[in-house]
Amino acid sequence: MRATVFHAPGDVRVETVPDAKLLEPGDAVVRVTHACICGSDLWFYRGEAKWQTGWRTGHEWMGVVEEVGSAVRTLKKGDRVIAPFSFSDGECEYCRKGVQTSCVHGGFWGGAGNDGGQGEAVRAPFADATLVALPPEVANDAALLRKILPLTDVMGTGHHAAVAAGVGPGSTVAVMGDGAVGLCAVLAAKRLGAERIIIFGRHESRLALARGFGATDVISARDKAGIDEGRERTSGGAECVLECVGTESSMAQAIGVARPGGTVGYVGVPYGAAAGLNLGRMFSHNISLRGGVAPVRKYIPELLKDVLAGTLDPGPVLDGEVDLDGVPGGYAAMDGRTVTKVMVKL
Amino acid sequence: MRATVFHAPGDVRVETVPDAKLLEPGDAVVRVTHACICGSDLWFYRGEAKWQTGWRTGHEWMGVVEEVGSAVRTLKKGDRVIAPFSFSDGECEYCRKGVQTSCVHGGFWGGAGNDGGQGEAVRAPFADATLVALPPEVANDAALLRKILPLTDVMGTGHHAAVAAGVGPGSTVAVMGDGAVGLCAVLAAKRLGAERIIIFGRHESRLALARGFGATDVISARDKAGIDEGRERTSGGAECVLECVGTESSMAQAIGVARPGGTVGYVGVPYGAAAGLNLGRMFSHNISLRGGVAPVRKYIPELLKDVLAGTLDPGPVLDGEVDLDGVPGGYAAMDGRTVTKVMVKL
Repeated sequence: MRATVFHAPGDVRVETVPDAKLLEPGDAVVRVTHACICGSDLWFYRGEAKWQTGWRTGHEWMGVVEEVGSAVRTLKKGDRVIAPFSFSDGECEYCRKGVQTSCVHGGFWGGAGNDGGQGEAVRAPFADATLVALPPEVANDAALLRKILPLTDVMGTGHHAAVAAGVGPGSTVAVMGDGAVGLCAVLAAKRLGAERIIIFGRHESRLALARGFGATDVISARDKAGIDEGRERTSGGAECVLECVGTESSMAQAIGVARPGGTVGYVGVPYGAAAGLNLGRMFSHNISLRGGVAPVRKYIPELLKDVLAGTLDPGPVLDGEVDLDGVPGGYAAMDGRTVTKVMVKL
Repeated sequence: MRATVFHAPGDVRVETVPDAKLLEPGDAVVRVTHACICGSDLWFYRGEAKWQTGWRTGHEWMGVVEEVGSAVRTLKKGDRVIAPFSFSDGECEYCRKGVQTSCVHGGFWGGAGNDGGQGEAVRAPFADATLVALPPEVANDAALLRKILPLTDVMGTGHHAAVAAGVGPGSTVAVMGDGAVGLCAVLAAKRLGAERIIIFGRHESRLALARGFGATDVISARDKAGIDEGRERTSGGAECVLECVGTESSMAQAIGVARPGGTVGYVGVPYGAAAGLNLGRMFSHNISLRGGVAPVRKYIPELLKDVLAGTLDPGPVLDGEVDLDGVPGGYAAMDGRTVTKVMVKL
């Protein structure tokens, strides 16, 4: 089969690799129909994360079950499924507590040992627990599938930021970052009842989308000026801050605009973010820091329900589209910020 | 009047200072009967916090009201009162939300502008909101007053760590530090229903007290060895970790022994602690960081009720006693770790 392989920073290639196949009785092999390129893929693409030549890429994908192992009970060949960006056994303490990303037998797609989603097929461990079947009526509805695809990662991740920060009816929310996760965080905050949603970003088209998603205010100033403007517009800070970038400056801004007694929900993969932690301010004003890698598996059912009901549509964050051969070009486009997020249609 | 004044690291002196007096209609002047020396006082005593010569010391105190301003409604001359370690107006948004330490008009005893508790009298701003009257039957009960005194700070602070970490019935709790706050955190965790309480410390006598307070396990190993032992004894970490020290190594240990999905409640004043934040582990395992300077004012009524009912007694953390002239010696004793916490009886 063909799949995307990391070679070096700035160099990913679509190559022939060994076919995905069943290894354990709980596995399924799934033919990928849709995948994405993630903002976090840029960390290895830019050389910030140390990746090795030969590692497989892509952790956001959906597809059709091709084959199941003897222990698989709930899925069969032909089922259309969505995968969260990590797999998990569904049985351990952490899975039962809804922290599937800490599953004792779990892992992430791609990397050293697992198939990646940016390829023709994936071996999915713990298929019953990991994959979520889509209802039959979704099957050939391309528009609907596009709305569902962000539930693999960015929509669930934005939702996790909002949940971690305690967003609820009437909340005042500040969202750091206008990337796909930040935009989904706006949607999530709106869905949870936030009254005021201030997005921090600098990209015109993305900010326009954020307004469409429910953002009430935009702040484009950075660093101290951004913090000052955020505090001024909220008379002292936002109760809930959703950190959706993961850099030092973004984390510093998040803590800076948090209201005393408030919470920063952080989901940006923290590259350098620890240096942005103003623990003095956090301590002085009882600002909580919650979040982390999103247990997307926990959130897919409730978010899917709303997408199917027509009340939630994160599809517009996918403003680029390529086929499998177009994946390297998709990385380059996202790296150059000419698109927000690329869908890979196989 | 006489009060303790900071001169230089290692040098505090009891001197004659201007008498405490009413400045605002909401003030009370309180004659101090009991005060403490706090572990956090050692930060300026050791030169870690930059203090200036002439600043007044002491933020833990109780006393008898001597005079009240014209706007004071709930207190009168002769009332015995306990003060939390900060004053607050009781009316602002943060006070109403129970984050009195972020009060927009509030502040802390001692330092540059306010009377300190390690002296004969204190001007207490916002007396109605700040001070809590003790019932008349407490008046001359020296043993009971000794049990109440830690509610000025360390008992409320240990309780805040436990509340921030989400301690509840059946919780497994790890407490970093066997100082007065760590010991009170053990008491607080026990009071909130924790089933297992593991204290990390190295001082025999304090650890014996911790066992008396409800600690079920003691770990004296430090750094990686301490983390390894903590994770091993809990099969992966404690759900609730109470950080009661504030140093880099203590914060690192706290995050290291937190269970995936768990929470670190931190109340140690963070000197260097930011460097101990393993944000990678926190992110990977959704470990929350909550807490900060304790809004002790919020907790005094409920804790006082239990002390009066005989079900809570943090008094044993006070293992040293001096009179006002003995305050400098008390600092030296705490600095030399020959006592855990010194009571000042005026």
